[in-house]
Amino acid sequence: MSHPTIALAQALIARESVTPEDAGCQELMKDLLEQCGFTNETMVFEDTTNLWSRRGNEQPVFCFAGHTDVVPAGDLSLWKTPPFEPVIKENMLYGRGAADMKGSLAAMLVATQRFVKDHPDHKGSIAYLITSDEEGPFINGTTRVIDTLEARHEKIDMCIVGEPSSSHQLADIVKNGRRGSISAKLTVHGKQGHVAYPEHVNNPIHLAMPVLDQLSTTHWDEGNEYFPATSFQITNIEGGTGALNVVPQTVTAWFNLRYSTELTDKCIVEKIENIIESHNIAYDIEWTYNGKPFITEPGSLVNSVQTAIKQVTGKYAELSTSGGTSDGRFIAPTGAQVIELGPVNKTIHQVNECVNCDDLKGLTEIYYLSLVNALT
Amino acid sequence: MSHPTIALAQALIARESVTPEDAGCQELMKDLLEQCGFTNETMVFEDTTNLWSRRGNEQPVFCFAGHTDVVPAGDLSLWKTPPFEPVIKENMLYGRGAADMKGSLAAMLVATQRFVKDHPDHKGSIAYLITSDEEGPFINGTTRVIDTLEARHEKIDMCIVGEPSSSHQLADIVKNGRRGSISAKLTVHGKQGHVAYPEHVNNPIHLAMPVLDQLSTTHWDEGNEYFPATSFQITNIEGGTGALNVVPQTVTAWFNLRYSTELTDKCIVEKIENIIESHNIAYDIEWTYNGKPFITEPGSLVNSVQTAIKQVTGKYAELSTSGGTSDGRFIAPTGAQVIELGPVNKTIHQVNECVNCDDLKGLTEIYYLSLVNALT
Ligand SMILES: [Zn+2]
Ligand SMILES: [Zn+2]
Repeated sequence: MSHPTIALAQALIARESVTPEDAGCQELMKDLLEQCGFTNETMVFEDTTNLWSRRGNEQPVFCFAGHTDVVPAGDLSLWKTPPFEPVIKENMLYGRGAADMKGSLAAMLVATQRFVKDHPDHKGSIAYLITSDEEGPFINGTTRVIDTLEARHEKIDMCIVGEPSSSHQLADIVKNGRRGSISAKLTVHGKQGHVAYPEHVNNPIHLAMPVLDQLSTTHWDEGNEYFPATSFQITNIEGGTGALNVVPQTVTAWFNLRYSTELTDKCIVEKIENIIESHNIAYDIEWTYNGKPFITEPGSLVNSVQTAIKQVTGKYAELSTSGGTSDGRFIAPTGAQVIELGPVNKTIHQVNECVNCDDLKGLTEIYYLSLVNALT
Repeated sequence: MSHPTIALAQALIARESVTPEDAGCQELMKDLLEQCGFTNETMVFEDTTNLWSRRGNEQPVFCFAGHTDVVPAGDLSLWKTPPFEPVIKENMLYGRGAADMKGSLAAMLVATQRFVKDHPDHKGSIAYLITSDEEGPFINGTTRVIDTLEARHEKIDMCIVGEPSSSHQLADIVKNGRRGSISAKLTVHGKQGHVAYPEHVNNPIHLAMPVLDQLSTTHWDEGNEYFPATSFQITNIEGGTGALNVVPQTVTAWFNLRYSTELTDKCIVEKIENIIESHNIAYDIEWTYNGKPFITEPGSLVNSVQTAIKQVTGKYAELSTSGGTSDGRFIAPTGAQVIELGPVNKTIHQVNECVNCDDLKGLTEIYYLSLVNALT
């Protein structure tokens, strides 16, 4: 008979929950949680279904966070088996969401079932914060659940986000923070005209070059113990009418910074706007705040998780803050300790996404022992 | 009865010769030239019909140059009268090509008819170099006629190109040269990747900024007596995948130089490639040679034309090398004196293109007197 984590992962993968659809995944989870003594609270915001579920009324609150939505399947002809029909081949479970992150959801639930059975009188509380818009615009998901909890002073103390953090082997890497991300669209204004009459034009591309050069060569920080140095990247630039004899009216550049906890979005905006202002040009700029940086320093959560990992894999995980953003950025600002721990991320968002069945069993064990270490 | 220049201009405008079509304009011109004792030679190259016509076998050869093709009419709903149905209203002749340059062609022909009648034994020769691809890619027009003449050692000594050179009043400006024009497409190569992993990318936009900044702030020359300083303009820049979290593989910039006779295309290419090389980047560059600069210093042609202008308008024209390129660039390198003289250019290439009827009569007079001054 198949391991309960594998069976549950298959049941979740079979639900075609392409973002922002939940497709009944949360209903399945709610039934299981209810049987474990959890109180379920579904929070629907616009097109997004979220679940807040809790067992117990005491602190500390140990929360599993994750998402039921998946990215689209992509080119179906490249899938060896249908993406929403889970199949096990050579001990690998295939299907969209197998690694990101229905496998993790299944592991959390099976670990929780076992923990509640073994330790019905655990201290503190266990909670689930589940959304169906992590792969989408992340407007109506975790951030709004957190707002709701904050408004009623309900606090998460420790949180494991089930994102696939592992690189080569299960739990070789745990993310204990993420860099901040801030983007901007900068438009520099000049005066359009024919190249044959340079005295009547003011070339915005020429005006923008020294500004963008200065921004791209600015030293932002050295990073710190947990973060690499802040990085600035121009991702797109666009200027010109297409005609080879016309100087355009404007040029637009889009850039992004991934920044460490040495900086704040406020000081980045100020520094960049000061640099632009110093060039005395006509411009406008639109900022997009993608997420503040956060760090969970070694403490009760990291210790519980590292001990569990050592027990299962024989070695401690490397703590890392690299990679893209996750919903952890919305939970950490409340003061919660947040780490991300899930299976190997090699195939996520790709065709033939898959996860190792032994890894899902091991992950169940790690989640279970983390609960034991934290709440008993 | 209408002035013969106006009547002929109307007959030419009525022929819908959108580039590279000639639509019978040259046949009409050939008939009139033949009646004046010219020998016509039609030269068809690919899609383009050209006319070389000459009266006399002696030097100097005084040539009228021009084009029968016109730019497309554009948005017909914006024309007050149909573009290919010439109409006179308040002394203005309306129609596509009225100013650029069927009015000039008519003025040349009527001036020539009169001159040949008055001075049947003029010295030297009169010639016509007419093309139908000046508004197009200018590959099969003037440049190939010139090649043919050069191959048989047939020389033009003085040439009036009938382009609309006038700015506010008839013959206020004569172009006695043009800047050179050279363009390039520069692609800078980097390494694509996600902004979250800056250690794996090599941002081509960042690499290009200092190069383009240096090019746009380089001092090229001071110009000279006849030319303003050489001008460098980036006209288009394009880089990015559109995604805001991806650093692209390449960025491409298009630029153009309008350059004086102080520089050559060879030294421009060398200087720019040296600058780029000094930045140690991976790049490729494609050059387009649009035309070398030329200047016709005051001499027999300028004197003949200026004297004629003074006789008709009461003042000398300003000599200028400003503005875009013209087919003069193909004729000048043979050693010919070349100037451009035609009606006011305010409405050329626009809807409701028009020319003042009195200006066409005055232009006929100026062309006539130029012939008198040069060939009698
Ligand atoms: Zn995910
Ligand atoms: Zn023209």
